[in-house]
Amino acid sequence: MSVTAPAGFVAAGGAVGIKAHGAADLAVVATADGRPVSAAGLFTANLARAAPVQVSQEHLQVSGGRAAGVVVTSGNANAATGPPGLAAAAGLCRTVAQAIGAAPTEVLVCQTGLIGVPFPFEAVAGQIGAVVARRGSDRQDSLAAAQAILTTDTFPKEVVLEGPGFTLGAMAKGAAMLAPNLATMLAVLTTDAHLDPSDLRQALVRAVGPTFNSLTVDGCTSTNDTVLVLASGLAGPVDPSAFGRVLEEACGQLAYLMAADAEGSTKVVRIRVTGAVSDAEAHQAALQVARSLLVKCSFNGADPYWGRVVSELGTAGVAFELDRVTVSYGGVNVCSGGVGVAHDEAALRAHMAGRDIELHCDLGLGSGVGAVLGTDLGHGYIDENRTTS
Amino acid sequence: MSVTAPAGFVAAGGAVGIKAHGAADLAVVATADGRPVSAAGLFTANLARAAPVQVSQEHLQVSGGRAAGVVVTSGNANAATGPPGLAAAAGLCRTVAQAIGAAPTEVLVCQTGLIGVPFPFEAVAGQIGAVVARRGSDRQDSLAAAQAILTTDTFPKEVVLEGPGFTLGAMAKGAAMLAPNLATMLAVLTTDAHLDPSDLRQALVRAVGPTFNSLTVDGCTSTNDTVLVLASGLAGPVDPSAFGRVLEEACGQLAYLMAADAEGSTKVVRIRVTGAVSDAEAHQAALQVARSLLVKCSFNGADPYWGRVVSELGTAGVAFELDRVTVSYGGVNVCSGGVGVAHDEAALRAHMAGRDIELHCDLGLGSGVGAVLGTDLGHGYIDENRTTS
Repeated sequence: MSVTAPAGFVAAGGAVGIKAHGAADLAVVATADGRPVSAAGLFTANLARAAPVQVSQEHLQVSGGRAAGVVVTSGNANAATGPPGLAAAAGLCRTVAQAIGAAPTEVLVCQTGLIGVPFPFEAVAGQIGAVVARRGSDRQDSLAAAQAILTTDTFPKEVVLEGPGFTLGAMAKGAAMLAPNLATMLAVLTTDAHLDPSDLRQALVRAVGPTFNSLTVDGCTSTNDTVLVLASGLAGPVDPSAFGRVLEEACGQLAYLMAADAEGSTKVVRIRVTGAVSDAEAHQAALQVARSLLVKCSFNGADPYWGRVVSELGTAGVAFELDRVTVSYGGVNVCSGGVGVAHDEAALRAHMAGRDIELHCDLGLGSGVGAVLGTDLGHGYIDENRTTS
Repeated sequence: MSVTAPAGFVAAGGAVGIKAHGAADLAVVATADGRPVSAAGLFTANLARAAPVQVSQEHLQVSGGRAAGVVVTSGNANAATGPPGLAAAAGLCRTVAQAIGAAPTEVLVCQTGLIGVPFPFEAVAGQIGAVVARRGSDRQDSLAAAQAILTTDTFPKEVVLEGPGFTLGAMAKGAAMLAPNLATMLAVLTTDAHLDPSDLRQALVRAVGPTFNSLTVDGCTSTNDTVLVLASGLAGPVDPSAFGRVLEEACGQLAYLMAADAEGSTKVVRIRVTGAVSDAEAHQAALQVARSLLVKCSFNGADPYWGRVVSELGTAGVAFELDRVTVSYGGVNVCSGGVGVAHDEAALRAHMAGRDIELHCDLGLGSGVGAVLGTDLGHGYIDENRTTS
């Protein structure tokens, strides 16, 4: 159960012929009655925005932050496809709107897959109605939707959280092209909490900062990044701060799942920086370490080579004095005052051998803190990405 | 022949026990008579500057831009080693100065290898004199020096160029941790041209911009990057602009050699961006593409996936309008107006299969141009860097 856990939502997933061999490639999440509810979205910062991003942004603006459904396709990003791509993305919304009884601008669209390949709207349009007609609120319906949005992911990513008086459900996909602003990914969240569109948007903006925008797999920000949240309101008004906490927790869990399923990754690494002169500099320093190819290779080899970590901190563009720096892995201090220190080698080896690595750097300069979630870099990432065929 | 090709220089290389198994790990380049000549240096922008960087910067300042010799060691970066590291770097200069009959501040020092490992100065000091005593100006002497500075490089990197009335020689090492400001690397250049220290420095600053600072292998800027140039003056005064051109050509050839020998790389890729609103934005855009893990993986697979290229251009932080973008590989146009175009598949495949790939992006907005030299990302890079042991 994920997006259909909150009251008032249905979902479906199936194949419409975008991917070869009849693989599932279209998902729909909609309100049960086809009427629009509060909706908010955040989108890629990439200036090469894909057609679905442009269309969803326009629809949210026209509707004043209301939507009755979301259509997600996988297998073709519909990016760098020109005016025909825009027409195709709008066509997906129109087709789904018709099937659920909503206005076209009340449907949002997300797409993921190869960039620069014309989207075959005419070929798939006729198959969409049958998928949408199967929509329901059972576990199998939300699972079908969560599966249909995957590309190179190895498992569906679903989260359900209960807040005080409301439920929040979510599904996401993301396995490469993951970087802040946004971490490249698609996520659709639903809730039965009652919030007006502007409060919903504000909560979403706050939730993505420490979650999706603090996740990096390869530093690449895609053309299609999208996070959407729909609120049916059926559970009535909620405490805004409680809702914000639950929303952030859900986004954090999805971010972790995406890191854990990142292409070729064998480690999930949480990099925490303290003692920076500001939170912003701490975040920037953590991101520099997380993005370093050399550091990522060390994680892959379970090698606690802290020398590369201090080297990256020194190029992060933040205030830095080597002789104040402390570095530890899993609580084992390996560097103090900018030089190596004796430590428990066995404990360090045991920590590095695990799936989850905790790296903590203290800059010794102030009270700024920040954290970023990253991964290692292994052969699998290259194998997944060296050719598109 | 490299650093001993210009009149007035001698060199030597040998083993002093930094590396295991008696591998060559110390090189010296010095003036033949041990007297100081004009010298200039450029150093890493990393705030975690290694001890030898700090010592060389101080020596150049104290001497007013004059040096009689350079000592280079490999196998230990002497970075993040605290005050003992500074004492060790100064000790290397003092020992070599004594051997060549110069003042300690007239000797510069470069070191490369592992970060954070104490440098065993006491253990190696006694072996240095014997290596320096072997110095000479023959081909075998400069080759021994060029070999002793290598780490994971697979071949020595030597360049000799003849300018109008002068000779320029150079050696370099660099195989990973290569990124602009400076491309991580050590390079020692010599010339018999006569230039005063400030003119020499100015020429060096100009030469590194389009060469070492336009090279990226993994985006990591090391703690030890150093480029040094010594001018014996024995060939007399020279045309400054001719000298600048030859110096830039030498740096460019070294940069190409470093890209060609980058860890695990199978391709050297020249990424040229035109039509940007400024040269600075063109350079920034080219760098963004060159650093992209996804684009580098595509190069590894000889896959002309231009969709990733336009995606990176869209996140480069430069003025960008997708529908004005043109992309070509080896002159084969694959994207115009931001969408894919029909092209000669066979010609494209043939170009991508080669060792050298030319990628050209035109942004269609202005007259800014820039170029960056990069590489692909293959298994070999990960294998070299996953563990230090």
